[in-house]
Amino acid sequence: MTDAHGPVLGFVGGGQLARMCALAAAPMGVRVKVLAAPSDEGAAEVAPDVVVGRADDPDALRAFAATVDVLTIDHENVDHATFAELEAAGVAVRPGVGTLRYSDKAFQRQEFAAAGLPVPDFLVVEASDPTAAGQVDEFASRHGGRVVLKASRGGYDGRGVWILDAAEVPEFLQSYEGAPLVVEPLLPLEREVAVLVARRPSGEVAVWPVVETVQVDGMCDEVLAGGSVLPTGLEAEALRVGARVAEVTGVVGVLAVELFVVDGAVVVNEIAPRVHNSGHLTIEGTQTSQFEQHVRAVLDWPFGPTGLTAPYAVMRNVVGGAEGDPRDRQAVTLGQVPEAHVHLYGKASRPARKVGHVTVLGDDLDRCRAQAQLAADLLAGD
Amino acid sequence: MTDAHGPVLGFVGGGQLARMCALAAAPMGVRVKVLAAPSDEGAAEVAPDVVVGRADDPDALRAFAATVDVLTIDHENVDHATFAELEAAGVAVRPGVGTLRYSDKAFQRQEFAAAGLPVPDFLVVEASDPTAAGQVDEFASRHGGRVVLKASRGGYDGRGVWILDAAEVPEFLQSYEGAPLVVEPLLPLEREVAVLVARRPSGEVAVWPVVETVQVDGMCDEVLAGGSVLPTGLEAEALRVGARVAEVTGVVGVLAVELFVVDGAVVVNEIAPRVHNSGHLTIEGTQTSQFEQHVRAVLDWPFGPTGLTAPYAVMRNVVGGAEGDPRDRQAVTLGQVPEAHVHLYGKASRPARKVGHVTVLGDDLDRCRAQAQLAADLLAGD
Repeated sequence: MTDAHGPVLGFVGGGQLARMCALAAAPMGVRVKVLAAPSDEGAAEVAPDVVVGRADDPDALRAFAATVDVLTIDHENVDHATFAELEAAGVAVRPGVGTLRYSDKAFQRQEFAAAGLPVPDFLVVEASDPTAAGQVDEFASRHGGRVVLKASRGGYDGRGVWILDAAEVPEFLQSYEGAPLVVEPLLPLEREVAVLVARRPSGEVAVWPVVETVQVDGMCDEVLAGGSVLPTGLEAEALRVGARVAEVTGVVGVLAVELFVVDGAVVVNEIAPRVHNSGHLTIEGTQTSQFEQHVRAVLDWPFGPTGLTAPYAVMRNVVGGAEGDPRDRQAVTLGQVPEAHVHLYGKASRPARKVGHVTVLGDDLDRCRAQAQLAADLLAGD
Repeated sequence: MTDAHGPVLGFVGGGQLARMCALAAAPMGVRVKVLAAPSDEGAAEVAPDVVVGRADDPDALRAFAATVDVLTIDHENVDHATFAELEAAGVAVRPGVGTLRYSDKAFQRQEFAAAGLPVPDFLVVEASDPTAAGQVDEFASRHGGRVVLKASRGGYDGRGVWILDAAEVPEFLQSYEGAPLVVEPLLPLEREVAVLVARRPSGEVAVWPVVETVQVDGMCDEVLAGGSVLPTGLEAEALRVGARVAEVTGVVGVLAVELFVVDGAVVVNEIAPRVHNSGHLTIEGTQTSQFEQHVRAVLDWPFGPTGLTAPYAVMRNVVGGAEGDPRDRQAVTLGQVPEAHVHLYGKASRPARKVGHVTVLGDDLDRCRAQAQLAADLLAGD
């Protein structure tokens, strides 16, 4: 029913990030295709052009790439070798393979340290290395006796992270099987913040105001923007670090940098070379959303402005509850919080699964937080 | 790939209004189905569940209605008899047949006059009535010798409207074949404004700030919101008229009321019992868009707030030009007007065809107007 004008943007992965990008791309006349695993649910409802296939299946990736102008990602768990092959063959893969390598936390820490970016003290060990336990013990003794161990690959939303006393480490290493571990101090966090950066192929970047992220059980629960999230000098430093990470990783598209604030300074916690949960409030809360900006970046279109549209914006995730489904609780939620911007991802509700988010804008931060929490709780059935 | 939670909303007609409603419905977890004519292009790109069928085909309508929870419309050119039959059978048809009758301009004028709403002086004639020419001549003689004739059904975007000298009327009536004509004075318009109203089944209404509409060749070209579109007393009167029209027509959903400002007072020009071009700027320019509010209204969900998100909002339509396609002119447009909110409808570009719109927000009205015009012109290839 359509003709051939406008670019075709292909997403590898069909979760909520591809879904929200597709919803941002449609008004711009950009056609979106999605390579979705059978279990992906978010994007299929909004993108008519969904191909079922796995992100780690080289043949599926090759066939899909041949049908799009630009290839981008919903998640980083893609087949890097095939991405490299496609990139070498001239496909516009954005972010490229050079950026995707930074999803490996060990590689990321080493490269960032070498680039002079502020990172926590760290150590990379292989659990099978007989000297590992000794190395971690020595590291722990310099950092108060407790350490954080992170699997360098495969972790998300708090999975793949362990906080241990030095004495627990040897037993842990004996039972652990998996990617190399990054060992870090348990830092006395003042707060956690995030910087979102978009970067075009030319290197031009756009940054959004710094947001504060509130984590519960290692999963982002609430994001706050507006007012003075950080003192002026520290905000400028956070934005500088964000832009520098974009440059070092060479990302094309949106990239999120999660930062710890420790002793009045920022250090890089981790990054995601894609649109990110910490940026969902940009849909209503800033002049150009992360999703639209990602589309503009990967198509090499000029950026939109990134200023806040209201004094404060607060986002809360909607997490599946014990029973029922948020899609059946809209009327009661909007009755209590009519100003809530509700985003549900079309995913079946299960306990602890992110199935949506809510954003509330306003000029009173406490009220925004309370209303966002109320709406999220009502949707979750809590 | 999805389960059965959340309501299913069916649109009869698959143009840009259904498309933009579908884009507003998706974040709320509302599943949208579209009954689209083969020539409809707007909605198919964003709604995976498109059924091809005609809005005036009773069997297609019946089959479609059986698959949705609520039936609504993209346009009013639907089969009223079948809508009445579905309504009688208990289908939630919103707006209902009682409201759709107001699409007939003769019926609308007569009912509004009877309800005490401010309307221009008018006359309804059948061209085949031998007394018609005499009636129009007498009417014209009371109104400066010139009249506006409007086909009571079937006109849009300036089509079906004729401005004639009294002397031209007899020949026009002889050649005219079609629906009864509404005859009106050629009013000395100070400006044209529009009021958008949403109404729930309970009668609860929400209104947006009054907007000014700028028409070129009978087609809406530019819409302005913010500041003082009208003096305070007149704005209140316009909003009162809008709410009263919603009540009289019994609309469920969004309804647009186009008003003339004449001699410092408002009179109803015409209405559309659906989302409307004059409300496109509500997507970014107000807290809840007309598209989201329409979805909330027809599902009987509580309304969102309707205040402006910026001091001014300006929308301009993008009209197809002589060559090329706006979807291929995005990079140059966004390079010149990075803050433009571009909406393209996925329709093939043809001269004089509305293929998209642009909205610009800001605190300087003149700059908003200039930037919106520049972006629309660049997209159109002018």
